[in-house]
Amino acid sequence: MQINPSLARLQTPCLILDEEKMLRNIQRLRSRLDALGVPLRPHLKTAKSVDVAKHLVDERHNMATVSTLKEAEVFADAGIKDILYAVGIAPHKLERVAALRAKGCDLIIILDNIEQANAVADFIKATGQPIPVLIEIDCDGHRSGIAPDDAETLIAIGKALVDGGADLRGVLTHAGQSYTARSNEELELYAEQERIGIVIAATILRNAGLPCPIVSVGSSPTAHFAKNLDGVTEVRAGVFVFFDLVMAGIGVCDVDDIALSVLATVIGHQREKGWILVDAGWMAMSRDRGTSKQVVDQGYGIVCDQNGKPYGDLIMIDANQEHGIIAVRPNSSGTLPELAVGDLVRILPNHACATGAQHDHYNVVNKQQQVVANWPRFSGW
Amino acid sequence: MQINPSLARLQTPCLILDEEKMLRNIQRLRSRLDALGVPLRPHLKTAKSVDVAKHLVDERHNMATVSTLKEAEVFADAGIKDILYAVGIAPHKLERVAALRAKGCDLIIILDNIEQANAVADFIKATGQPIPVLIEIDCDGHRSGIAPDDAETLIAIGKALVDGGADLRGVLTHAGQSYTARSNEELELYAEQERIGIVIAATILRNAGLPCPIVSVGSSPTAHFAKNLDGVTEVRAGVFVFFDLVMAGIGVCDVDDIALSVLATVIGHQREKGWILVDAGWMAMSRDRGTSKQVVDQGYGIVCDQNGKPYGDLIMIDANQEHGIIAVRPNSSGTLPELAVGDLVRILPNHACATGAQHDHYNVVNKQQQVVANWPRFSGW
Repeated sequence: MQINPSLARLQTPCLILDEEKMLRNIQRLRSRLDALGVPLRPHLKTAKSVDVAKHLVDERHNMATVSTLKEAEVFADAGIKDILYAVGIAPHKLERVAALRAKGCDLIIILDNIEQANAVADFIKATGQPIPVLIEIDCDGHRSGIAPDDAETLIAIGKALVDGGADLRGVLTHAGQSYTARSNEELELYAEQERIGIVIAATILRNAGLPCPIVSVGSSPTAHFAKNLDGVTEVRAGVFVFFDLVMAGIGVCDVDDIALSVLATVIGHQREKGWILVDAGWMAMSRDRGTSKQVVDQGYGIVCDQNGKPYGDLIMIDANQEHGIIAVRPNSSGTLPELAVGDLVRILPNHACATGAQHDHYNVVNKQQQVVANWPRFSGW
Repeated sequence: MQINPSLARLQTPCLILDEEKMLRNIQRLRSRLDALGVPLRPHLKTAKSVDVAKHLVDERHNMATVSTLKEAEVFADAGIKDILYAVGIAPHKLERVAALRAKGCDLIIILDNIEQANAVADFIKATGQPIPVLIEIDCDGHRSGIAPDDAETLIAIGKALVDGGADLRGVLTHAGQSYTARSNEELELYAEQERIGIVIAATILRNAGLPCPIVSVGSSPTAHFAKNLDGVTEVRAGVFVFFDLVMAGIGVCDVDDIALSVLATVIGHQREKGWILVDAGWMAMSRDRGTSKQVVDQGYGIVCDQNGKPYGDLIMIDANQEHGIIAVRPNSSGTLPELAVGDLVRILPNHACATGAQHDHYNVVNKQQQVVANWPRFSGW
């Protein structure tokens, strides 16, 4: 193999980010939501990178979603002023929330129970700091949130917040079950279920005389398949910025849209078993096996040549901490490519959020697969 | 719940390291190997912490194993002078190996094929730097290495190295399959299989007139179950320093020996489903589901009270990026403990190497569960 000289200068394993594919993914969803008339509040938990956020956050809205207060702090420092922390608040985190708000960031929190609402009210009473809140709605039984039609709980929380001096901003939901969809029709149904659930909850709040300016929905699958967003004021989505094999497996993107991969070096063979060994194991790929429950199990990822072109039925069938085992997919008639010790391959991840988190920077490549930038990423809470 | 005031000062999720359990784990294996007369070359890939290494590396031997050159560089800077980089060498990494050796660290590499041996010989020819090498042996079909009785390949590689000016130091193997053992008898068999394989390979090299001063075996399971180490000069083991649920599942340790856990805060409930939601998801636990193939599937981990005592049949049954779902184990007659929003729990990990890698420091607690230190850990390659 003639090694791409630009990639040859990198230490393996490392992350490669195809900038053109990323920009295409961003533009595709932006155009889609523009047509539906609803702004995108991108989720920055996938990228955790200020450089990616510069492309991802639409300057027309300058708003974002985060999954940790660390993300909120980093992105607020980078100039994003409207940030939604979309994990139910733990009471002891309110001090960090208030500190960030005091620095000029309009940080919004979420919650789904009266104990949290009371903790917020107590905090406001003690500090005099108003805190904006969305109430989380569970549109599909996926994890947290109040059932959309549980008017009693919803109104009780809303009143506790308003009476406690909080700034009730509205409602939020996440169609987490859409990740299990198996057809476009199912994706469209999940999107409509998400919309209906949140609109019911917003209506209940408003009918009780409570404020509800924000009606927030989102997941990468439903954001790409919603046909109607009536009553919705913003859409959240995160993983679409890079996409991954789980998203390709449910038909939200093509494999060719996946902008993230892990560069690895061949270190050996077990020829009688049909194995190629590389220096990227689960530490580089993550332990995410999200495609294991899909129709096509991609192992630890699809193997591409050094420039990102899939070899066909070649996948990483198993991984140790710093070893990956590459082989032809089970039951495939494909053949193993001739790869020598020292050759480079790229592996597309099951789950971009998980794979990204194993690394501290992106090696950004242009269309000619030349490394044009090093973008740091952060982690932690 | 009366929150432990020392833990209440931490931001969740975060890692808790029980120092007394860690020291007990280290002492147990050290005593065991002392009795067998073989030194331990501890694997530092689990901890990736200079503070842990100070306890783990026996000053009588001052030697260690690592899984990345980054680890080698950090631990060499910390004063460890005899380091084995136990992943087959990628040719482009030889420059970093040589740079580290030039700084006074006796860094040893491994390889298992003639292409790598030739690359090492070429490098030595070009630079004049001798490089010490172990040849990797595959004792159980787990991943890389030469079959122990493949005398032809073994001798060819040995000769290529010696003729090329390398410092052939011997042979190494890793009983990776021992992680699938289901009884003590099976663990003893894996240990003996590992020993026999490596002794055969060492004998082949020596009979061919090639040097073989180092005969290195190791895995945490076999290190704890080997009864005979005749012919072996050193034992490697890593995860035992903290232990985890995978190790407990195969009987290498008790659950009470597990020194590592993730501290999390309760953020809500789905009471009709029997769920408690916490602010530690797979980002804090890792995606490792190593117990899923064991007799008892521990989900994403066993849930303990804030001071580390398991609740019984309570596990993290599912995880999103920053959400964990806690419930009574399926088919258990156990009941959900009363946990309020804001209460703290600790979750024991499936795999200490993977969970540790999600964090940048250890909060070290003493026997009274008071935080007594903050030990940084590193990541990357």
